[in-house]
Amino acid sequence: MLYVGVDIGGMSLKIGIVNEKGEILSRFVMVFDKQSKQEEMIVALANNIKNHIKEEKYNINDIKGIGVSCAGVVNTKTGYCDYSANLNWNKLDLCGILTKYTGLEAKITNDANAAILGEVKFGIAKNYHNVVMLTLGTGVGGGLYLDDKLFEGNEGKGAELGHSLFIYNGRKCACGLKGCFEKYASASALIYDTKEAMKLDKDSLMWKYCENDIEKVNGKTAFECAKNGDPSAKKVVDQYISYLSYGILNFCNIFRPEVVILGGGVSNQKEYLTNPIKEILKENNYGYKNTPPVEVLIAKLGNDAGIIGAAALLMD
Amino acid sequence: MLYVGVDIGGMSLKIGIVNEKGEILSRFVMVFDKQSKQEEMIVALANNIKNHIKEEKYNINDIKGIGVSCAGVVNTKTGYCDYSANLNWNKLDLCGILTKYTGLEAKITNDANAAILGEVKFGIAKNYHNVVMLTLGTGVGGGLYLDDKLFEGNEGKGAELGHSLFIYNGRKCACGLKGCFEKYASASALIYDTKEAMKLDKDSLMWKYCENDIEKVNGKTAFECAKNGDPSAKKVVDQYISYLSYGILNFCNIFRPEVVILGGGVSNQKEYLTNPIKEILKENNYGYKNTPPVEVLIAKLGNDAGIIGAAALLMD
Repeated sequence: MLYVGVDIGGMSLKIGIVNEKGEILSRFVMVFDKQSKQEEMIVALANNIKNHIKEEKYNINDIKGIGVSCAGVVNTKTGYCDYSANLNWNKLDLCGILTKYTGLEAKITNDANAAILGEVKFGIAKNYHNVVMLTLGTGVGGGLYLDDKLFEGNEGKGAELGHSLFIYNGRKCACGLKGCFEKYASASALIYDTKEAMKLDKDSLMWKYCENDIEKVNGKTAFECAKNGDPSAKKVVDQYISYLSYGILNFCNIFRPEVVILGGGVSNQKEYLTNPIKEILKENNYGYKNTPPVEVLIAKLGNDAGIIGAAALLMD
Repeated sequence: MLYVGVDIGGMSLKIGIVNEKGEILSRFVMVFDKQSKQEEMIVALANNIKNHIKEEKYNINDIKGIGVSCAGVVNTKTGYCDYSANLNWNKLDLCGILTKYTGLEAKITNDANAAILGEVKFGIAKNYHNVVMLTLGTGVGGGLYLDDKLFEGNEGKGAELGHSLFIYNGRKCACGLKGCFEKYASASALIYDTKEAMKLDKDSLMWKYCENDIEKVNGKTAFECAKNGDPSAKKVVDQYISYLSYGILNFCNIFRPEVVILGGGVSNQKEYLTNPIKEILKENNYGYKNTPPVEVLIAKLGNDAGIIGAAALLMD
């Protein structure tokens, strides 16, 4: 059997034909026409998928269906994208339209859920039963694989671990709440804290690293300067790792996973990130005394996680 | 089929024979002999169960097995109670001994998990698929029923919602971490905050309510005096309800449950507790925009939740 995986991040999207081993056999990209109505965008996607299948000479009967990874608020029950700020979508019958124009079954989930499903089926988290995944990017994406199953919550709208509570009445979040985890543990939060530290230390190596232009600060700035011994950068990194570690301890107590997977831009720090986290987890008994150890690993599928994870929605 | 439900809270325990409707047909209590070794305690329990079955003339072939609800750190895979501070147990092969001496299959879970299973199968949470339960007592017990299944985490040691993070670096918790939810939302936390408020307001009605003896403060003090218009008591209650509501919003974003069940002593405040919580949840879109409403209900099974929930461990 073959599976179509669709990864909708923003206006541009990636589509792949995936086999049962999670290998992408062929792929294409497309860009939505900004002038189109939301329904027309999905009709165009459906037609592109049909054309690709034809051009690449796949047998339509070999294709089980279409899995869609979509950044935004989706409803797994109805197959709708209920809301996407990036794409300006509202109550869009995404799966219904895909099925209507391709004849193929379609399933949807959000991007973080697709990423963890990819990692569990074909990536770093194979053979684990309880997995928590955190994608450290603009926000913090959350994925949950519990008792050998993707857990998405009512209507597929759970696992919003970036909007779990970190500090009651803390930093204001775009979601409307205060003190959400992503306001402390995302790449954006790291950049914010890096800039604040730079303002307090005009001699910091971080100024040199970003050519004296604070707008050039990114998620690597503090990490790279800390590696070069800059005290202010080290403070930022230590604080960030503490935030992330105590967030993970929180998820340890809630889910007691066997492994926590880190993805997203910040996870490129690899052992420099995971080693101190593991120490903090161990020092704190993985959240609670007499509990089993929790492994911390870096995600493996990278940019293909969306396509592969989306395709995996159709696999048994 | 019949089921034995055992509720081990401390040295005294409750045992019931439960039918498929969740009705307790007969019951007895027993007290562990403090002088006994931990294994001997369980042998005594096994013998008492056998005698009860004989005396009440049940047919042993009608009994599917024994379910145990145990306050403490249990391991659902091995059937052990790994640790109980109250009972001074360590690595106790509880289910193994019960099976050896009764010939019946035995399963174990912690008290909070048993409580939610009881409520889902036979109590207030029937017909819901995703349920979060919080037991507001000395600590905050947490139970999770996700996608129509009890979720317990690796070794049955998850769902420690009382030890989820509420304030990074906040109040020190007995578990070793800081800022755990139960340091803000348990009855103990409510009592602590009530006392602190009384120290700041010598004219508060709360002093009269507890006969000028601050040691008489309990989980009702602030609620009852708030109902009588005392401003300091009202402040304590408002703050407590805010803590609890933002904790629930946190769980909404993580699990997106259909319903949150409140049990334990504080839940006796009923609508006085749930009505303001529901308002705060609604004001905050149940955690996130475009998400379905979450109901808040009071647990129904009360003191029988342990027996019934434990028995339900053996039901399909």
